[in-house]
Amino acid sequence: MSSSTLSGPAFPELEKRHAVFRDSEALLDCSPEEGHWRSVCSSGNIPECSGQGKPREPGDSGDGCSGLESVGTVLLQSSPQHPAVTQPPLSLRWTPLAVPMCSVVWQHSVGKGGWFPGLPGCRPGLSVLVCPGLSTHWVLGWLMGEGEVGCCPEGTRQGPEVLVPVPRHLGHRPQFHPLKHGFDEWFGSPNCHFGPYDNRARPNIPVYRDWEMVGRFYEEFPINLKTGEANLTQIYLEEALDFIRRQQARQRPFFLYWAIDATHAPVYASRSFLGTSRRGRYGDAVREIDDSVGRILRLLRELRLGDSTFVFFTSDNGAALISAPEQGGSNGPFLCGKQTTFEGGMRVPAIAWWPGHIPAGQVSHQLGSIMDLFSTSLSLAGLKPPRDRAVDGLDLLPAILQGQLMDRPMFYYRGNTLMAVTLGLYKAHFWTWTNSWEEFKQGIDFCPGQNVSGVTTHTQEEHTKLPLMFHLGRDPGERYPLSFGSAEYQDALGRITPAVQQHQEALVPGQPQLNVCNQAVMNWAPPGCEKLGKCLRPPESVPEKCSWLH
Amino acid sequence: MSSSTLSGPAFPELEKRHAVFRDSEALLDCSPEEGHWRSVCSSGNIPECSGQGKPREPGDSGDGCSGLESVGTVLLQSSPQHPAVTQPPLSLRWTPLAVPMCSVVWQHSVGKGGWFPGLPGCRPGLSVLVCPGLSTHWVLGWLMGEGEVGCCPEGTRQGPEVLVPVPRHLGHRPQFHPLKHGFDEWFGSPNCHFGPYDNRARPNIPVYRDWEMVGRFYEEFPINLKTGEANLTQIYLEEALDFIRRQQARQRPFFLYWAIDATHAPVYASRSFLGTSRRGRYGDAVREIDDSVGRILRLLRELRLGDSTFVFFTSDNGAALISAPEQGGSNGPFLCGKQTTFEGGMRVPAIAWWPGHIPAGQVSHQLGSIMDLFSTSLSLAGLKPPRDRAVDGLDLLPAILQGQLMDRPMFYYRGNTLMAVTLGLYKAHFWTWTNSWEEFKQGIDFCPGQNVSGVTTHTQEEHTKLPLMFHLGRDPGERYPLSFGSAEYQDALGRITPAVQQHQEALVPGQPQLNVCNQAVMNWAPPGCEKLGKCLRPPESVPEKCSWLH
Repeated sequence: MSSSTLSGPAFPELEKRHAVFRDSEALLDCSPEEGHWRSVCSSGNIPECSGQGKPREPGDSGDGCSGLESVGTVLLQSSPQHPAVTQPPLSLRWTPLAVPMCSVVWQHSVGKGGWFPGLPGCRPGLSVLVCPGLSTHWVLGWLMGEGEVGCCPEGTRQGPEVLVPVPRHLGHRPQFHPLKHGFDEWFGSPNCHFGPYDNRARPNIPVYRDWEMVGRFYEEFPINLKTGEANLTQIYLEEALDFIRRQQARQRPFFLYWAIDATHAPVYASRSFLGTSRRGRYGDAVREIDDSVGRILRLLRELRLGDSTFVFFTSDNGAALISAPEQGGSNGPFLCGKQTTFEGGMRVPAIAWWPGHIPAGQVSHQLGSIMDLFSTSLSLAGLKPPRDRAVDGLDLLPAILQGQLMDRPMFYYRGNTLMAVTLGLYKAHFWTWTNSWEEFKQGIDFCPGQNVSGVTTHTQEEHTKLPLMFHLGRDPGERYPLSFGSAEYQDALGRITPAVQQHQEALVPGQPQLNVCNQAVMNWAPPGCEKLGKCLRPPESVPEKCSWLH
Repeated sequence: MSSSTLSGPAFPELEKRHAVFRDSEALLDCSPEEGHWRSVCSSGNIPECSGQGKPREPGDSGDGCSGLESVGTVLLQSSPQHPAVTQPPLSLRWTPLAVPMCSVVWQHSVGKGGWFPGLPGCRPGLSVLVCPGLSTHWVLGWLMGEGEVGCCPEGTRQGPEVLVPVPRHLGHRPQFHPLKHGFDEWFGSPNCHFGPYDNRARPNIPVYRDWEMVGRFYEEFPINLKTGEANLTQIYLEEALDFIRRQQARQRPFFLYWAIDATHAPVYASRSFLGTSRRGRYGDAVREIDDSVGRILRLLRELRLGDSTFVFFTSDNGAALISAPEQGGSNGPFLCGKQTTFEGGMRVPAIAWWPGHIPAGQVSHQLGSIMDLFSTSLSLAGLKPPRDRAVDGLDLLPAILQGQLMDRPMFYYRGNTLMAVTLGLYKAHFWTWTNSWEEFKQGIDFCPGQNVSGVTTHTQEEHTKLPLMFHLGRDPGERYPLSFGSAEYQDALGRITPAVQQHQEALVPGQPQLNVCNQAVMNWAPPGCEKLGKCLRPPESVPEKCSWLH
């Protein structure tokens, strides 16, 4: 029997009492071990940070977007003083389709005119949570009216003040510091916890409190790679709980972005969780995250903040199969995993919780995306999106509140390449690619154990003239392409083609921010290093073209 | 939103109010479509009958076991007059591991001395539900004390009387008629609904009421292969509801074996369900089954029989991927499907429901099997298994009632070959095989889209000296064999080896019942055919060696 002896399983209670918003196809067992997650997370798209499966530092690109988030728990607490947030009810529920890479975010995300003059790289909402350092600010900016980056449309400054601890992976360069982008507090790291490094070729990644580094991974914040033991999730949890208590004491609305990465390789768990799951170290990490979310939810209820706090849970991409099984999840029936634009890389869980507002156990088949958070949040606050630029995000409130299903396309990019598009239940692949033969032969496999002829290709196969088409309802595993000659194929393509055309016509290419790497811009001497005696000497600045596996 | 507009979704209510007993690894979305099944069935091991993906009649073997069941819903209703059943509480919950083929059942199932003198082929419990015509009788026999096959141990005749409609796939030869094996009523077919046939080379399969045929598939019981429309599930449902009502009126305990096969290829659904799912025809069929189970449960509650009726739901094998996606399910993260001894072929859902007795939402990791039904039922009735023969089934009550996890081996056979064994979380493969290259090249693929090097082999690869070993907790998809040199491998093998040895020493080879086929023994002229004018002339008797795909 799976009765947990650990404190605070998050979601059994969540499911019973509150909303579970999820994509049914995606909702499989992401933790084959214990009961907690079974019914709430999905598809084996177990929350995890976007590592490359090997110790590397995604933040060593020359610019801001330093990697993808692992798990994002967003708490948005409203109060009667802030009608913009409380009217209409803040019951955001959705199913995101995470973009798999920041490079996609950047390059795809440039809308007409851009949303932020100061940040032309991101179309509204697209990079929310995915690249929070660059983008959360304008969800926050809009809510807060901080305006520091000139991102707030006129008349949108009535939102509550917001405090945000524990963001991670924000981009490590000074200009991307969270406190410069709408966050009032920060505890965490601008990068994933790759390493350990020798502080010569690369510096270990810093952990910040607000403006200053308070230590480094593997040093002040140890991770035992051999045993998998680290108490980081507990540290982040205590920060979150403390933050919530302080805001409650101050009677202030708050926004908490709680992004844990224990399920990202190298996977870790605290001692009390290590060895408690049947799923190995990965399962232990999932249990600890689950338990921690449960403790956050419980605190909210104890403080009587439950019915005024909207909690949203999601992940940035599907399970990293290159790290499986010990340090990566499973994508259930879906094809391949992270780093691909197959469903295993794109389909992720999404759960919204708002006791008293979102009824328990609801499931939506609405196709959603992280970028919809922006439009939906605007709608929740009774605001209209700006009309002077294109906004990709969809207001999901009709799906959330009225159970509507809105047919909308979803575009899957790798780099600048539009790989695939989903419209309704149909998905058309214009290109297929897993990774190169060269990489594959080195053992880098994005689709271990899977092989769909003509689909999981190791050469970049073009299908733009005659896309490969799948019906994701009957075939969520993308194993059975529709017959090109079938009426079903023709009908689906006839609806997809104009959607793609419209999308491409509206898209304004942006300035790539991930195509230059430079060892010199890594975290050699973050602010505060002097106090700790931990300033390292950066190497000579040598910008070079970055090479990404995907 | 997935609110069903159809009547009687079975398991949302079940899950909320009563017990769900399931294997967490297995419990994925077996119907990626609608909400009803998501949380109760499993692994894409969607209930389905054991077809070969092509119109064929498994009952054309020379003997009784004519195919495998699709979905088995067993209702065992007790009353105070029958203390043998009501003490201890009848709260059977389990996770079965179905044997994939009747041939396995027969050949593996011969225990020391056999359980039934009259039926030496089946070791107790092993073929319950799988080959009900030959075996349910002694579960029933034990409960009923019918004794007609001499199957009841002394002192076990105190059970309730039992009535059983709608069994299917019982073996079509006269000696296997259900009413000769403990059933008091029968409505259904002795075979799957393969066809249509031309009644020349093969007869269409009959449907019986009690002793006599009342029609044939595709004739009196139409199935539209083109549209998938058939109202068979509704017919079976009405039979079940009527049966329950009659027993309640008579104040009699009852046993109902309700074995529907709508999800077996050729898949069908009633008109009101066709087109209602996103999962295609298969999803429509699942929805209808779900709805029907819901109606049965609702009737039980309406008749105030809920707290005295134990309902058990399971399937015979994993999804038949050779029929996917339109007419077959998905096995989620598990490897391959029906006809193999990989997890996708063996792991199936199991749900037990007994309002007021089994608390809702329980999950057990106990490894169970259909054969455990026998031993567990004995235990529930306060009886001891016979000591003069080996009984493979495990009494699952400690798992059910006390949440214990009992370490027991589970043996996976194909024909006479012990392919694999599971002990705890470890699974050792002594042989690997999907199907032959010859078949594979003809397009018969038991593992579509899956390819694990050295595991999903198309030649029969022997590993008896050094078994391939998987940790099913970390790697339920059987993709990452343990290193032969690892301590973990050695330790697991050190525990598995004696378990296998003990098993093999205790096993007494049986007489295969599936190695002879004969067209003459098909359903040419079943009893009652005269009244209908539907007697066909059998061909000359030509026994021949059967060829099975698996």
